[in-house]
Amino acid sequence: MSRLTLALDVMGGDFGPRITIPASILALEQDPTLELLLFGDSQQITPLLQNSPISIQQRLHICHCQREINNQQGLSYALRHSKGSSMRLAIEAVQKGDAKACVSAGNTAALMGLAKVLLPSLPGIDRPALLSLIPTINNGCSVMLDLGANIECRAENLYQFALMGAIFAENTLNIMYPRIALLNIGIEEIKGYKSIRDAAHLIEGNANLQYVGFIEGNLLLNGVADVIVSDGFNGNIALKTLEGAMMNLMSVLKERSFFAYPRLNRMVSWLVKRFFNNSYQRLAHFNPEQYNGASLIGLNAVVVKAHGSSTVNSFVYAIKDAALQARQAIPNKILIGLEKN
Amino acid sequence: MSRLTLALDVMGGDFGPRITIPASILALEQDPTLELLLFGDSQQITPLLQNSPISIQQRLHICHCQREINNQQGLSYALRHSKGSSMRLAIEAVQKGDAKACVSAGNTAALMGLAKVLLPSLPGIDRPALLSLIPTINNGCSVMLDLGANIECRAENLYQFALMGAIFAENTLNIMYPRIALLNIGIEEIKGYKSIRDAAHLIEGNANLQYVGFIEGNLLLNGVADVIVSDGFNGNIALKTLEGAMMNLMSVLKERSFFAYPRLNRMVSWLVKRFFNNSYQRLAHFNPEQYNGASLIGLNAVVVKAHGSSTVNSFVYAIKDAALQARQAIPNKILIGLEKN
Repeated sequence: MSRLTLALDVMGGDFGPRITIPASILALEQDPTLELLLFGDSQQITPLLQNSPISIQQRLHICHCQREINNQQGLSYALRHSKGSSMRLAIEAVQKGDAKACVSAGNTAALMGLAKVLLPSLPGIDRPALLSLIPTINNGCSVMLDLGANIECRAENLYQFALMGAIFAENTLNIMYPRIALLNIGIEEIKGYKSIRDAAHLIEGNANLQYVGFIEGNLLLNGVADVIVSDGFNGNIALKTLEGAMMNLMSVLKERSFFAYPRLNRMVSWLVKRFFNNSYQRLAHFNPEQYNGASLIGLNAVVVKAHGSSTVNSFVYAIKDAALQARQAIPNKILIGLEKN
Repeated sequence: MSRLTLALDVMGGDFGPRITIPASILALEQDPTLELLLFGDSQQITPLLQNSPISIQQRLHICHCQREINNQQGLSYALRHSKGSSMRLAIEAVQKGDAKACVSAGNTAALMGLAKVLLPSLPGIDRPALLSLIPTINNGCSVMLDLGANIECRAENLYQFALMGAIFAENTLNIMYPRIALLNIGIEEIKGYKSIRDAAHLIEGNANLQYVGFIEGNLLLNGVADVIVSDGFNGNIALKTLEGAMMNLMSVLKERSFFAYPRLNRMVSWLVKRFFNNSYQRLAHFNPEQYNGASLIGLNAVVVKAHGSSTVNSFVYAIKDAALQARQAIPNKILIGLEKN
C-alpha cells in the first residue's frame, strides 16, 4: 500500500496533545504506511514524543502554530480569528494537497464552517452533512446522517443526505443497494414533519435507491436499515442518546462484575469464558469508542470530526477512519455516484 | 386506602385483550383497593376471565362495546368514527366521573385527540404534553416531556412543559425544587433552535424554577436533571432511542449468560450472586417495561398511554402508574402549582 499523509489538528478536544499525540504514535505503529502532519504548539507536542522510536518519529512532522480555536468561541468569532490556528492549517494542508484528509477533535461548528469555506463542495450537494457509523445488534453497522451539521433541513437536503449515505454505505460497508430509512416518530406515512414526508417521496422516486420507510428511535440498533437519514438536530439527539445509553449500561456492568476481578481463580475464569464471554464480546461491538469520528461528507475531501472527549483509543479510531476514507477515495466515489443519479 | 376505579380501553395495543385482560387480573391481585371498568368486546374478554377468582371478578366490570379504534386510522378519521369505541367510552367514563383515570395502549394520536376534546384543559396550558419517567444511573428517575403530543413547539409551550414537569416531579418523585434542563444538541447558549433558547430565558426568569441549562442526549440517564423538556418530536426520538438501546443491550446480555442457565450448581449460583448480582439488579432498574405509561398531562384528569407493544407486566405498570397519579390527584396539584406561578 502506498504512503498516505493525514493532517491532524492536535490542539482540538478536551485534552489536546495529551490525547492526540499518544494516539498519533499508536496509529503510526499500527499502520506502517501512514504519515502524519501534526498541527499544534510544538512546545506541548515535543515532550510527548520523546519516548517514541525513531521509526515512528520519521513519519510524523510537527507543523508549529501558536493559535488554536477553542470550544467556547462562537462560530463567527472562530472563523474571523482562525488564521494560523491548528484547525485551519490542518484543513489548508488538505486544500493544498499536502495531506489527503484531516482529523480534529476541536470545535465542531468551526471545523464544519472552515471546511465548507476552504474545501470545494461536491456539485449537486447544497449542504454537507455529518455522518457516522452506528453498531447493529447483528454485528453489523448502519450509516447515520446528518448528525449536527444542519439543524433544519428541507426535503431536498434530506434527499441529498440519503444519496450520499447510500454511496458511503456501498463503498465502506460493501452493501449493495443499501436500505434507506428516514428517522421519524412513527412508521405511518402521515407521521412527522412535512419535510420528512416529502423527502420520503423524493427517495422513493429514485429507482436507484432502496427506500424502506420511516424508522423510529427504538430500532436504530436493529439493522433494519443500512442508511438512516435525519436532520442534524434529531440525528444529534439520537446519536448522543445511543452513546449515552451504551456507555452507562456498560459502566454498570463493568463496575462490579467478574471483569472487575482479574485474579479470580482458574475455575471462575473458565466459567466466565464458557458462559459469559460471548455476551461480552457482543457488547464490545457497541462500545462507542469504536465509532469515534463523524465524517463531514459532501465536500471534495475527507474531514473527520473526532469527539471532543476522545480517549487515546477512540482518537486512533478517528485517524483510522480518515485513512480508510482517503484510501477508498470516498469523496470521489460520492461524486461519481451523484453523477449517476 | 379507599376504593379507586380506573377505566381501561382493553382493545388497544398490538395484542388487545390477550395482554390487557391478564394484566387487569394481575393489577387487581396486587392492589386490593382497585376496581376496573373494562371497555371492549365482551366476547373476547369473558373467556380470558374464566380462571380468575371470584374476588377478582367482583372488582372488574365489563362494559361491552362493539367498536374500536385501530392504529391504521388517521387522526381525523379516528375522531369522526370514535363514537361507541372502547377508547372513547373509557375516556367518557372519566369525563362522567365513573372512573378517576383511564389507560389505553391504543392509537396515540386518537387517544390524545379524544382526551383533549372530551376532558377540560388546565387553565394556563395551551397544549397538553406526554410525560414519562426515565431511569437514571444513580437508581433514581427523571421526568421527561413532551414525548410526542406536539411535534412543533413555541418557547411558551416548552416553558409550560417545564412548569408541569417540575410540579409532577415534586409530587410523584418527592423532589423539592427539581432541576430543569432543556434537551439540545450542545450546552452552549447559542446552540439549537430559537424556540429552545427563548424557552431557556423564560424558565430562568421564573424564580420558582431551578433551571440548570441545556442537556445533550448522552446525559439523559445520568441524573443531571430531574425534568427534561423538549418538543414532542425530539422527545419521542430520544425516548424511543433510549428504550431501543436498553432493550437491545439487555437482550444481548440475557442471550447467553449465567442468567440463561437456571440450573447451574450451587457453587456457580453463589459466585453469580457474589460478583454479578449487583450489576444485574442495577441493570434491571433500566428495564423499559417498568416505565411503560406516558401520561398526557395538562388536562384536568389522568390519562395514561401504554405502549402499543405492551407485555402483561408492562401493562400492569401502566395501570399502577394511572392509579398512583389518580390517588395523588396529580392534575389538581398541577392546577394549584400553575396558580402559584
